[in-house]
Amino acid sequence: MSLNPIAVEELVRRALMEDVGPGDLTTSAVVPADARCTATIVAGADGIVCGHPVARAAFLALDPTLVYEPLAPEGSEIAAGAAVASISGMARPILSAERVALNLMQKMSGIATATRRLADAIKYYHARLVAGWQTTPGLRLIEQYAVRIGGGQNQPHGLGDAILIRAGHLVLAGGVREAVVAARKSAPPTTRVAVEVSTLEQVQEGLDAGADILALGSVEPETLKRAVELADGKAVVEACGSSDAAHLIEIAKTGVDIISVCHLAHSAKALPLSLSIGDHSAWKKKPED
Amino acid sequence: MSLNPIAVEELVRRALMEDVGPGDLTTSAVVPADARCTATIVAGADGIVCGHPVARAAFLALDPTLVYEPLAPEGSEIAAGAAVASISGMARPILSAERVALNLMQKMSGIATATRRLADAIKYYHARLVAGWQTTPGLRLIEQYAVRIGGGQNQPHGLGDAILIRAGHLVLAGGVREAVVAARKSAPPTTRVAVEVSTLEQVQEGLDAGADILALGSVEPETLKRAVELADGKAVVEACGSSDAAHLIEIAKTGVDIISVCHLAHSAKALPLSLSIGDHSAWKKKPED
Amino acid sequence: MSLNPIAVEELVRRALMEDVGPGDLTTSAVVPADARCTATIVAGADGIVCGHPVARAAFLALDPTLVYEPLAPEGSEIAAGAAVASISGMARPILSAERVALNLMQKMSGIATATRRLADAIKYYHARLVAGWQTTPGLRLIEQYAVRIGGGQNQPHGLGDAILIRAGHLVLAGGVREAVVAARKSAPPTTRVAVEVSTLEQVQEGLDAGADILALGSVEPETLKRAVELADGKAVVEACGSSDAAHLIEIAKTGVDIISVCHLAHSAKALPLSLSIGDHSAWKKKPED
Amino acid sequence: MSLNPIAVEELVRRALMEDVGPGDLTTSAVVPADARCTATIVAGADGIVCGHPVARAAFLALDPTLVYEPLAPEGSEIAAGAAVASISGMARPILSAERVALNLMQKMSGIATATRRLADAIKYYHARLVAGWQTTPGLRLIEQYAVRIGGGQNQPHGLGDAILIRAGHLVLAGGVREAVVAARKSAPPTTRVAVEVSTLEQVQEGLDAGADILALGSVEPETLKRAVELADGKAVVEACGSSDAAHLIEIAKTGVDIISVCHLAHSAKALPLSLSIGDHSAWKKKPED
Amino acid sequence: MSLNPIAVEELVRRALMEDVGPGDLTTSAVVPADARCTATIVAGADGIVCGHPVARAAFLALDPTLVYEPLAPEGSEIAAGAAVASISGMARPILSAERVALNLMQKMSGIATATRRLADAIKYYHARLVAGWQTTPGLRLIEQYAVRIGGGQNQPHGLGDAILIRAGHLVLAGGVREAVVAARKSAPPTTRVAVEVSTLEQVQEGLDAGADILALGSVEPETLKRAVELADGKAVVEACGSSDAAHLIEIAKTGVDIISVCHLAHSAKALPLSLSIGDHSAWKKKPED
Amino acid sequence: MSLNPIAVEELVRRALMEDVGPGDLTTSAVVPADARCTATIVAGADGIVCGHPVARAAFLALDPTLVYEPLAPEGSEIAAGAAVASISGMARPILSAERVALNLMQKMSGIATATRRLADAIKYYHARLVAGWQTTPGLRLIEQYAVRIGGGQNQPHGLGDAILIRAGHLVLAGGVREAVVAARKSAPPTTRVAVEVSTLEQVQEGLDAGADILALGSVEPETLKRAVELADGKAVVEACGSSDAAHLIEIAKTGVDIISVCHLAHSAKALPLSLSIGDHSAWKKKPED
Repeated sequence: MSLNPIAVEELVRRALMEDVGPGDLTTSAVVPADARCTATIVAGADGIVCGHPVARAAFLALDPTLVYEPLAPEGSEIAAGAAVASISGMARPILSAERVALNLMQKMSGIATATRRLADAIKYYHARLVAGWQTTPGLRLIEQYAVRIGGGQNQPHGLGDAILIRAGHLVLAGGVREAVVAARKSAPPTTRVAVEVSTLEQVQEGLDAGADILALGSVEPETLKRAVELADGKAVVEACGSSDAAHLIEIAKTGVDIISVCHLAHSAKALPLSLSIGDHSAWKKKPED
Repeated sequence: MSLNPIAVEELVRRALMEDVGPGDLTTSAVVPADARCTATIVAGADGIVCGHPVARAAFLALDPTLVYEPLAPEGSEIAAGAAVASISGMARPILSAERVALNLMQKMSGIATATRRLADAIKYYHARLVAGWQTTPGLRLIEQYAVRIGGGQNQPHGLGDAILIRAGHLVLAGGVREAVVAARKSAPPTTRVAVEVSTLEQVQEGLDAGADILALGSVEPETLKRAVELADGKAVVEACGSSDAAHLIEIAKTGVDIISVCHLAHSAKALPLSLSIGDHSAWKKKPED
Repeated sequence: MSLNPIAVEELVRRALMEDVGPGDLTTSAVVPADARCTATIVAGADGIVCGHPVARAAFLALDPTLVYEPLAPEGSEIAAGAAVASISGMARPILSAERVALNLMQKMSGIATATRRLADAIKYYHARLVAGWQTTPGLRLIEQYAVRIGGGQNQPHGLGDAILIRAGHLVLAGGVREAVVAARKSAPPTTRVAVEVSTLEQVQEGLDAGADILALGSVEPETLKRAVELADGKAVVEACGSSDAAHLIEIAKTGVDIISVCHLAHSAKALPLSLSIGDHSAWKKKPED
Repeated sequence: MSLNPIAVEELVRRALMEDVGPGDLTTSAVVPADARCTATIVAGADGIVCGHPVARAAFLALDPTLVYEPLAPEGSEIAAGAAVASISGMARPILSAERVALNLMQKMSGIATATRRLADAIKYYHARLVAGWQTTPGLRLIEQYAVRIGGGQNQPHGLGDAILIRAGHLVLAGGVREAVVAARKSAPPTTRVAVEVSTLEQVQEGLDAGADILALGSVEPETLKRAVELADGKAVVEACGSSDAAHLIEIAKTGVDIISVCHLAHSAKALPLSLSIGDHSAWKKKPED
Repeated sequence: MSLNPIAVEELVRRALMEDVGPGDLTTSAVVPADARCTATIVAGADGIVCGHPVARAAFLALDPTLVYEPLAPEGSEIAAGAAVASISGMARPILSAERVALNLMQKMSGIATATRRLADAIKYYHARLVAGWQTTPGLRLIEQYAVRIGGGQNQPHGLGDAILIRAGHLVLAGGVREAVVAARKSAPPTTRVAVEVSTLEQVQEGLDAGADILALGSVEPETLKRAVELADGKAVVEACGSSDAAHLIEIAKTGVDIISVCHLAHSAKALPLSLSIGDHSAWKKKPED
Repeated sequence: MSLNPIAVEELVRRALMEDVGPGDLTTSAVVPADARCTATIVAGADGIVCGHPVARAAFLALDPTLVYEPLAPEGSEIAAGAAVASISGMARPILSAERVALNLMQKMSGIATATRRLADAIKYYHARLVAGWQTTPGLRLIEQYAVRIGGGQNQPHGLGDAILIRAGHLVLAGGVREAVVAARKSAPPTTRVAVEVSTLEQVQEGLDAGADILALGSVEPETLKRAVELADGKAVVEACGSSDAAHLIEIAKTGVDIISVCHLAHSAKALPLSLSIGDHSAWKKKPED
């Protein structure tokens, strides 16, 4: 799913207001008003490129005449040292937007890179990789997008979009059966009901009550295998995975339908990027200044 | 510095709008409208507690009658399993705000924990620990606060608050001397001028041109030691550190004034927290439902 | 699903800024600053009460000391002349918020009333009543809520929440099969795929391609009956209904799973409400004014 | 009065954020990223076209390179089946903005159509048609505009723009005379004072106190006629009309200056519009996809 | 007209975000977190008090438990040294809100003071004092209010609220007659048409075309007197005054209906106010800190 | 420092929403929709031009096709009658934006003019002119910019950007020494600590405690001279100046480093500007209208 451009624009404008504030003191002081340059975003490590629409929006928010050109396509694999994108135009807005643009792109590329690695690890299995809902407040939009670019899938966007019965709900509802029945009764027919369970008894209870998705927490592979057998295609079985590929494969082998990695978007390591100033018309041309 | 409460309120409201959207489908479906409970935030690992004002604001934004009580004070050290805070009142808003409140508090406590560990490592040295400007867009406010709670210090809030001459500026200005002179000339007398340098020649150039802060990137300890000698108290010497405590000590021994850890706020590992539902008035009281 | 109180507050504040602007000229001119009163919201026609959380939020946004008391519970059936709610406190803010509060509550009660009438008409049939997505821009939140209070169900909140393949998509994708296959491939496993179809051939095509929901437009009951047979429980069959109860029953008899009424929320007739000023401390007490 | 373009832009952006959310799942899944098309907005019934500036703003908010061309001028009369506007460019943003653009234009054209019918009914009489203040919260701007396009006039925009003494004010002020005198004393000399009255005694009281506008509610034509005689040009006489043209004519014959139709903007039936996809470069060109 | 409290709250929150930013560095550093105090707003010159609702909102926005008490009523005349209001509670938020609260109240009291002086100068004449539309962007709400507190009246709030034909319009419309006729034709019957004129010929032209208000710029008193005679009660005559009381009286003597002082709100001298800290629980109680 | 264009755009959009509201009634009524013109901003007094980026943003916010051309460069000195800028394009948006654009530019040019006059007065002395923090709420950004254009310098942007110990802090902290020590201990090493003092004893106390800036209020020149001697280059000495150039020179002669003029930005007299309509295609071309 491509990003809603209005949401992207609001996000980068808010980030630029936070970072640039009343104006960029340093750039105004040391870069001549009429200097022009071409800058290149360069990768500092191997990974997956993600975030062109966001970085472009950041640069153009400060100056709509800047020209942003992706050099490595969105979602492509790059090596350390590769040129990711070029930006040409007035030098001042390029330097002023640099921090926000790189910051966001580093985060998004880091998420895409981590997702790709895990998705690849299990690509010959039935299970699909899903990133958990633990995204950074304010950045869910672009973190979920980075997961998709990396080859993973998203959990529903917000609490209003799906039924997800968590541990706290079970305590207050009185148990799996009670919670699923209540949810089933209240939700529209097209809304799937997911419930977090941790024992095979709860799995059976959830199945009997009509749950669509049974989300198992940290349980033994053997338990997952049994849950898959119990579900027998009548409900989706979801397991909780870590960021360790070997562990993911072990889970995938149990036959579960979904492996969710809770903190994937939240805590993937950023892919280092830097901005290199290339051709430029510089100060020396104006010695009288 | 305590947090601006208006800024905190806007941040949690935006996060709740993102997460809760039109309403919390699950909680409305499975938790009775009049259920009440006391919930406890419990630590899943050792660390430093940070984020009470933010978590409280998140819960109260959904229901101002909730009572939020810190059980471990802001900035205190806790062990895994410790109770961090309790929230009492209507069960529905407690569960609906849970994700946002914990998400933010985990992030903040993680930053405070990482900062404390590094600040402690160098506490017997002259150097002060400073977190770099690489904060999460939209969350700078609370990430910088978490650094302070952890015992570190902040770089200036935004590009309008200080002069920080970076590599790109040097290229466009024509060199360290040119950039510092231009900055010095343009900045108010009370604004300090910092410049990123990487060689001793640049250090000398910066000193001669009147820089207040010389920020050295990844250079050898020997070079740092020489830079400190050259500066001789006439300028602040800043070194760039990693998240490795041993490495930080090695740097601190060179006598630098400031060690900045660039990605500290950005990438500290979140401190796991969970919400445990304690006493509650539950469904079973109303079998007719 | 209860309403997100933050979203409600933003909605009423925006409406009050639009309606009250810099201040209420008339009320300031003719009502003494210290006058107090109790006002009653009175129904001008039979219907279903809906909107207490919204009306209360509107009055309290202008003066948090006002006391709002529902007299007829949310979702209850009332007769013309019935008292719906009372508001007590300072007279000025009560009169200034009157227009916005009543305007919203009239709209919501109108939707709930229309929904209840239609939902009741088909309550002995299998089909469930769903309101279409055609809600008033900016008011989706409260219009969907009013549909639920009336006994109907909602379509997904926005374009990012579900797959709904419409006529335009079919043209651009090249047909039902192509569109459903593409959607199935791209959507997360937990997202249901709905497709608008108008012939039995398209129904079969959709079924073969794995659609979860087949939404039929304006077709003959006979065609609906055949579609239900073809689907045979492997997909949800949705029919498009009007606001005419007899027509809805005719559709329900075909055995479809869902009857969606496109303009239900959008165009239901508002339930007339008025504000009656009861006990008050008035001008006459201060003859010297 | 043309629309403030900033206000229009904020309105459509808010509507698109509500409807599109993080992104358009369906369109991203089934329409190729590089597909282009020309789409036509087609009328489903006879009526008056209204809303070009709003629909254009909605499409361009998602993609400023789209070309929007009105085919029937703003305010013109069209027959069912007529082409209203064409939009050309990238197919994805056209489909993503479709719901918001059509939804708003349908509402606006519906209001203009209803207004035109009523305004025409009384065009040979002295009375002018005015739409009441009961507009949809958040949409007053465009609903008042649609009334003007239809040939009606607006009541003042908000409570801060004029004096309008309503029933509640009369109760609290102690009567027509007291309220009008207070208003007259407090209002700037250029602000007209309107008062809602229901008897000839009140009409006389209002006249004596210096009211500029006497707004009569649901009273007999005979009473209106008497009120006009009493006013004798010294005050504007306003009557309250319904959406029934014959009734409006009956009122107009009494000689009143203004006939206000309270719910005109609020509840006019939307004019059905649909988007038809014409020439397009489609999927078939990329069989390998 | 009292102020819309929602508008006031948004204004002070925006001002506090601008002034306090992430937090108040100084106050956090030097004032203990639990210090309490009572502070008094003291006048530094004679004048009219204005701004209690705004100052109160500023203090309470940072801490809703603060108690704000007006000591001199809104609109009252005070002497230098007088206590205007007291604020009690936690010391930190009092000091953090001080700058914004005093800044706004100084401005408002300055406007009220200037207005009162001028309004008093002409109080025995027919003319009413009106402040021109030249208000500070973003502060029109409170500046117009301050004018009213001072005893003046406001021009319409915005360009959408009234017809005011200015010099530029005359050029483009082709003259006074053309402009007034066009305005009269387009405006609702309840909207008054004002036109800026500078000669008696234009006065006559405006009268003939049906203008409601003739606004004369900088003309001789003799011309004003003639204009009043020409208008003869059929239109309101407005003259443009300065801040010089003697000049205002001279104008008032010509018999004009309105004297507008263009820059009154914009440029009145602020009334100096300071915050004096009285009783407080201070640092010395905690020598160990 | 150049202005953050995002901040400027938000400021002018807010101002235009306030001023234009739903639309410009007068311009729509009297200026034909297709009229074009060239308008010139003309100075009504001698002064310094300031505000091109803001005025341009205001005109373009209403119509991005307008062409704005500065005729006198930003910061240049002009005489009464000089042309400051020209705007060409559609006549309606030019007239609708006129009030906001001129209002802001008049204010900014007034500040730049006042600043230039004072900065020039002391240009042969050591002292630098700094404008105090008393800016208009919501306009700090552009007022501080205008000070810089005039040749002055700014105090820090907000309370979160620097330590400034004021009178109230001294009371609550227990004295100059206590406050400065607390600030020094809490502030980052790169943050300068300023303290307001009024006696030589406090100057010495501040110096001893390590203050970086000693801000003296209204004291005798002799005291300033003594303070400079005491500081002896170890701290910056700041004096408080008025808008009287002779007084400023007297202060400058004492050798202080900074002279701050508190109300400079706040209360400088606006530079009168007007908009003159030149070439235009006007009404007469369409006599049939």
